[in-house]
Amino acid sequence: MDSGNGKSGKIAIIVQYDGTKFNGWQYQNEGRTVQQEIENALKILTGELCAVVSSGRTDSGVHAIGQVAHFNLKSDISLQKLCIGLNGILPRDISVKNAFRVEDDFHSRYSAVEREYRYLIYNFPLRTPFMRYRAMWVNYNVDMGYVKEAASYLIGEHDFASFCKKRSSDINTVRKISSIDISFIDNVYCVTFKGNAFLHNMIRIIIGTIMDMAKDGKGPEYINEILNKRDRNCSGKTAPPYGLYLARVYFDPELETRESAF
Amino acid sequence: MDSGNGKSGKIAIIVQYDGTKFNGWQYQNEGRTVQQEIENALKILTGELCAVVSSGRTDSGVHAIGQVAHFNLKSDISLQKLCIGLNGILPRDISVKNAFRVEDDFHSRYSAVEREYRYLIYNFPLRTPFMRYRAMWVNYNVDMGYVKEAASYLIGEHDFASFCKKRSSDINTVRKISSIDISFIDNVYCVTFKGNAFLHNMIRIIIGTIMDMAKDGKGPEYINEILNKRDRNCSGKTAPPYGLYLARVYFDPELETRESAF
Repeated sequence: MDSGNGKSGKIAIIVQYDGTKFNGWQYQNEGRTVQQEIENALKILTGELCAVVSSGRTDSGVHAIGQVAHFNLKSDISLQKLCIGLNGILPRDISVKNAFRVEDDFHSRYSAVEREYRYLIYNFPLRTPFMRYRAMWVNYNVDMGYVKEAASYLIGEHDFASFCKKRSSDINTVRKISSIDISFIDNVYCVTFKGNAFLHNMIRIIIGTIMDMAKDGKGPEYINEILNKRDRNCSGKTAPPYGLYLARVYFDPELETRESAF
Repeated sequence: MDSGNGKSGKIAIIVQYDGTKFNGWQYQNEGRTVQQEIENALKILTGELCAVVSSGRTDSGVHAIGQVAHFNLKSDISLQKLCIGLNGILPRDISVKNAFRVEDDFHSRYSAVEREYRYLIYNFPLRTPFMRYRAMWVNYNVDMGYVKEAASYLIGEHDFASFCKKRSSDINTVRKISSIDISFIDNVYCVTFKGNAFLHNMIRIIIGTIMDMAKDGKGPEYINEILNKRDRNCSGKTAPPYGLYLARVYFDPELETRESAF
């Protein structure tokens, strides 16, 4: 819990946002971004111009329930007042869920040891308004066992070139997925990915490919062939951004071991 | 399942809508309403001008996951094509979830034997963007046992005049609540009300009153005093519309016993 005594220094916050009306996290010359909104709110609250650094950019339309970002603050403000103050200023599609005092060498991106993303798929013949900006809608039947088995081939360290937005070939496309878990409730699949890092569009291409495979009547093991091709032309569609959530960023030690607002 | 052979006659549909951008269900001279959108879509799909009658009006901002509405159709269209066609035309904040062939004397409102509503409360010190149009935000701590006990005094047949939007006193304000169930998951209370019928704003005033009582440190039994006063001035605030969902309408026999699209 907050000591109540404000101290200046490095602070990390957990940020949630509905990505629907943002051009992603990162500052851009045009369009609304999460980073700009938080920097603006910090300026209004403390008078300071802070550079807010996140654990990873999210693309336009992608949501976050546990994004982590850090900044240095000179102002003497308690962590609770910081959270409540920011939430009072921030637009309603962003909120700060907690704040922590972190060491000077903490870095939201470089100190992160693992990232957790979730992808939601609404699997029903007819669409529903409540999932329209929240999940990919798939109107043909996909069974739980199929998704589980197809995903299982991707766990471990692989070259994920087939599941990466096309770019120059000299980029290292080896990544390690430590787990993929799937739950199904009320016609919604929630596919949870954990890994050290993910390539650009990697999760959205994995999901799009599994759904295309199911539609085309391919066996779940077919994903292995796609993986081994190391070619984006062999994989399926990029699933829409609004099904993707940055759920949690893991540190060692965990953020929760520090002094916090709540 | 759908026989595939279109027949004219009376049809009941299950309708879902995100109430955020509607002036409620019922046709009005100004503002967007769910009834108008469905009648427009039926006109486009079938060329027919149908009067679409719901099991109950919902106020501006109130959602539905299981509204039932009926209409008479002369066109020869299969139930599946009707659902898919309507969903193709309807704006993305309304959808049709299923359609049934019902008897000539079926009436969405008068044949309904029970209605189920849910009210969502997000109970956490800080707001979250994902609940901003979906649940009432309560930032002081309310425990499950308190909500359960307060609600339990309202089960049964009572004069709910204290929990009804003010109107002329000659209206019968006796209603019967058959059950109130509460679940709590991820900081969200879901309070499920079942009853034969509900007064205008009844559920929203019940919820607002229980939350006000918790804030004011009143015991849960205090709601009994409010009930017995039969006076709207004694109860609490009207909780916001966006926490309320018309979840299901029950018929005898159930809608699901009829020929359906899905």
